[in-house]
Amino acid sequence: MLEKLKNVLLGSPLKSDDGAGDEHLLGKSQALAMLSSDALSSIAYGPEQVILVLTALSAAAIWWSLPIGIGVLILLISLTISYSQVIHAYPSGGGAYMVSTENLNPSLGLLAGGSLLIDYMLTVAVSVSSGADAITSAFPQLHPYNLTISIVLVLILMLMNLRGLQESASALFIPVYLFIASTIFLLVFGIFKILTGQLDYAATAHVGQSISGMSIVLLLRAFTSGSASLTGVEAISNAVPFFKKPKTKNAVKTLVIMSAILGFMFVGITFLNYWLGVLPSSKVTILAQIAQKVFGSSMIGQVLFYIFQLATAMILAVAANTGFSAFPILSFNMAKNKYMPHLYLEKGARLGYSNGIITLAVGAIVLLLASNGSTEGLIPLYTIGVFIPFALAQTGMVLYWKKQSPQNYLKKASANVVGALICYGIIAILLVFRLADIWLFFPIIGVLMVMFYAIKRHYTNVAKQLRIQESQAKVTHYKGNRVLVLIGNLTQASIEAISYAQSLTDNVTALHVSTAETKDKDAELQEEFQREFPGLELVNVVSSYRDVIKPTVDYVRQASQEAREKEETLTVLIPQFVPKKSWQNLLHNQMSLRLKYYLRWNEDIVIASYSFHLKD
Amino acid sequence: MLEKLKNVLLGSPLKSDDGAGDEHLLGKSQALAMLSSDALSSIAYGPEQVILVLTALSAAAIWWSLPIGIGVLILLISLTISYSQVIHAYPSGGGAYMVSTENLNPSLGLLAGGSLLIDYMLTVAVSVSSGADAITSAFPQLHPYNLTISIVLVLILMLMNLRGLQESASALFIPVYLFIASTIFLLVFGIFKILTGQLDYAATAHVGQSISGMSIVLLLRAFTSGSASLTGVEAISNAVPFFKKPKTKNAVKTLVIMSAILGFMFVGITFLNYWLGVLPSSKVTILAQIAQKVFGSSMIGQVLFYIFQLATAMILAVAANTGFSAFPILSFNMAKNKYMPHLYLEKGARLGYSNGIITLAVGAIVLLLASNGSTEGLIPLYTIGVFIPFALAQTGMVLYWKKQSPQNYLKKASANVVGALICYGIIAILLVFRLADIWLFFPIIGVLMVMFYAIKRHYTNVAKQLRIQESQAKVTHYKGNRVLVLIGNLTQASIEAISYAQSLTDNVTALHVSTAETKDKDAELQEEFQREFPGLELVNVVSSYRDVIKPTVDYVRQASQEAREKEETLTVLIPQFVPKKSWQNLLHNQMSLRLKYYLRWNEDIVIASYSFHLKD
Repeated sequence: MLEKLKNVLLGSPLKSDDGAGDEHLLGKSQALAMLSSDALSSIAYGPEQVILVLTALSAAAIWWSLPIGIGVLILLISLTISYSQVIHAYPSGGGAYMVSTENLNPSLGLLAGGSLLIDYMLTVAVSVSSGADAITSAFPQLHPYNLTISIVLVLILMLMNLRGLQESASALFIPVYLFIASTIFLLVFGIFKILTGQLDYAATAHVGQSISGMSIVLLLRAFTSGSASLTGVEAISNAVPFFKKPKTKNAVKTLVIMSAILGFMFVGITFLNYWLGVLPSSKVTILAQIAQKVFGSSMIGQVLFYIFQLATAMILAVAANTGFSAFPILSFNMAKNKYMPHLYLEKGARLGYSNGIITLAVGAIVLLLASNGSTEGLIPLYTIGVFIPFALAQTGMVLYWKKQSPQNYLKKASANVVGALICYGIIAILLVFRLADIWLFFPIIGVLMVMFYAIKRHYTNVAKQLRIQESQAKVTHYKGNRVLVLIGNLTQASIEAISYAQSLTDNVTALHVSTAETKDKDAELQEEFQREFPGLELVNVVSSYRDVIKPTVDYVRQASQEAREKEETLTVLIPQFVPKKSWQNLLHNQMSLRLKYYLRWNEDIVIASYSFHLKD
Repeated sequence: MLEKLKNVLLGSPLKSDDGAGDEHLLGKSQALAMLSSDALSSIAYGPEQVILVLTALSAAAIWWSLPIGIGVLILLISLTISYSQVIHAYPSGGGAYMVSTENLNPSLGLLAGGSLLIDYMLTVAVSVSSGADAITSAFPQLHPYNLTISIVLVLILMLMNLRGLQESASALFIPVYLFIASTIFLLVFGIFKILTGQLDYAATAHVGQSISGMSIVLLLRAFTSGSASLTGVEAISNAVPFFKKPKTKNAVKTLVIMSAILGFMFVGITFLNYWLGVLPSSKVTILAQIAQKVFGSSMIGQVLFYIFQLATAMILAVAANTGFSAFPILSFNMAKNKYMPHLYLEKGARLGYSNGIITLAVGAIVLLLASNGSTEGLIPLYTIGVFIPFALAQTGMVLYWKKQSPQNYLKKASANVVGALICYGIIAILLVFRLADIWLFFPIIGVLMVMFYAIKRHYTNVAKQLRIQESQAKVTHYKGNRVLVLIGNLTQASIEAISYAQSLTDNVTALHVSTAETKDKDAELQEEFQREFPGLELVNVVSSYRDVIKPTVDYVRQASQEAREKEETLTVLIPQFVPKKSWQNLLHNQMSLRLKYYLRWNEDIVIASYSFHLKD
């Protein structure tokens, strides 16, 4: 039944050839749909984060969001140029993990990889919590359920990804282009209304007005919050192989188009917010407030507002989904290099990397619970998590150019040098002025790095132990073997198990452990056993503990030692029930599973299960 | 390492004799500490629920809480009398599940049992969410974290119970008596201040003032919400065996004392709330508001306020803990009757029923998430869940008296008749006027009932199949056996496994499945294998799927059929790694676990693991 449920929820398994074809390459408009959601959707929270920091001082400080917006624009332009360079250099797709591992060193590669793993969890958490904000801004009565909505969104995305998203490119067309179209419409319509005098100037203070208490520290804090809008700019540079030919040219063009749209949106929203004097509210996002004011309260204005909120929520869900594509691939690559458990190498029934998908969903839910579903609390962590791999990738690129053409590499690398410097600058600002908000990142990345190295060391040691030693005599010739059958009562199942054991060897012993509660029936069992199996030994061990695990483990340890001395092998046979329906598994075998778990620590034994198949 | 962590968190295992002694019997004041927290703590939310329903109409409606309070008091008195009867009739402890099963019929017993299981989850959820309210009423800056605080409280209680709460009686003394003392002090001090004119009369409307829109429906709704305060009254009647002698007399006395305190508190709080005109707020409980007003804002008043909030939070945590004592015992009893999985029969390392404790915690957390941590949303469900078993237990008692003395049973049963009628009345009110809030209870209990019967049917069938049939020849004599060793590469581990297999039989075959990715190395493996094991067969199956499960299962199915035809047995030997440290388990054996899971559906085979012990 579980199997069936899995098929219904996840669809039936796919052969491994499926999806290998080349007909899936992306044109520019498809690529924009596939790869821009993370970057574009961040305008749903980026400008708001700037304003939140400023208005913590005073509502009048809002005008400062305009110069900060220009700063973010400059940062965006320089990142766009330097990622164009990455595209040219790594046409096979240059993620920060690979670029850093190859050009810097494996440790910095791991730092980039670990940061990105955290970052994808944050992408999911930030995007769904902003998506929930967009939904509850439209339907204020849902506001108390923000956290629940976020968690449910993560679970839906997880299930969709476990099903496998073969059909993605076309399915993403609608949400991404609806969002681009409706946001540009909002901005153009807003500016049109301003120019025709239909939207009154309501700024909280004019540009240039002096604000008491304003400091460079506050401005830098606001700037770093705004730079969270640039997360996702790197996505295109990782996906060059999926573009139609000429790959690099198309990828660069798509990157430039995306950055242009993003820059226009960021500056446009910041400007409208300034003009309309919108203040942050815990219940309605500033983007929703702007849309309400621009579209007005007429019937058609309200319809436009709901469409816009829907488009925002949808692109945020799509952005969260990019985490679900990227995380499993990165963990696959790190597992291939033996820095993460092999279980991330296994594809699920629908060709998705199920373990990676589930890990990501769990991580995102923990982050949502820890931040109580608040976007604001997650943003600083998100920013540091993004800019560390950004900086490492750019640095790696500089070294890459140096290797390529050692003479005049500085010319080719200039864009990356600037990019790297800006990223280090942002990291420095975060470290100096926002340490209180980002410190949590460092213990987490520290634990991850230790884990990566421990896993690598373990796998390397195992490989060494498994290698066949030519020097030593590998094949052992045993003199015989003994089978120990564990039985509770004498049932049809235990009789069949003993019959089976007798087919393996003549040296069969039955082992029964009795506890205080079952002691009285020992004599009866012994008698019954001798009637069925005359001549066979039934060992009865009396336990002073309520459980039978410890006495069994002790007896087996002694028996295996005896076997070793006689150069024999020892097999422990445990009868288990195989029910007809999956759910019935819950009703059986707890004891046999626990026994098997504890027995495996004994050396030199084989643990075997005789499956008794239940018919109903 | 996991083992060590478990020991640190849960303490080291206990022998099964521990805690069997009789020196743990309870005196009246100890019993009150142990058994009254659930009932007494409900005044932290009960009176508030009445006022919430009334003020939904208008603030002026608060005066109606006084007559409703009288109604709740009458209900309390009649329940107290009828549970005294239960104590007399069932000195061995008469839970609703047992009373209903014995005196009514097993189905109604299951209805009572199922309701109680849900109910204990609600006890935990309601108590911790009220506890979180009490904490955040004292520290308003924590208010956004209400849900997180509730979940953390559940997890703490779960861990404490997995550790085992041997020391409970004395540890509970402080929170329970501190709460009783501080609440009574609050009420007496409040009334003293009123009498001396230090607390101004600020009622929103006088008693008797007519409220437009007031209806009998609204009053009944408010009354059912108030009756949630009576949950936990039955606790003493379930625990008679734990009292010191004379058991029944002491139990009845304790019940009467508890009811008197509860009644005084409920009426007192309702009155103070009326006098002070306190309105419900989403951020501060009315109990906290009353305490603020009565204690005043002086230094000492503030200290008293914090002590009171602490005491409230503590008794609510203790009340949640009663769920953790009761749920595992009830699920143990139902598992003994084969209505719940056997896994609820197993005691954990510290003698607690770990599975029951974990199930309860998970259920409570799901309820908290579903209700977004709101006490108000859980109360109607809680009320229906409590009054169904109340009603069934009282009905069962009437039939019990009839069996005892068929002639004049009505005289002895009168209290139970009245109790039953009141409970059915409340259920009827809930069904008619609050169906929208309680409907969820019915699908859940429906699913539980179906589950109970399915489990019972399954275990009965299994017992039939396991019984040894005297008629049939049970012991099969096989002619020989064949061992199939699954290997990936030729490693030290696979060589040892094959050596082991050869100790069992001469008929050993190695099986290797190659996928598209590993196909190229097949020839190499074959050659290497023949060098190590000349004369042994290595079967190579090529898979068109990426995974190796399906081809393996197919091959084994065919081999087991061949074995059956030759009257031989078949053993499938899978090498597995046993790492030195527990955490390393995560790095291995995913594939061998999955293989074992799928192979067990094949009939007539033994699945065996050869454990290769890693040294580092």
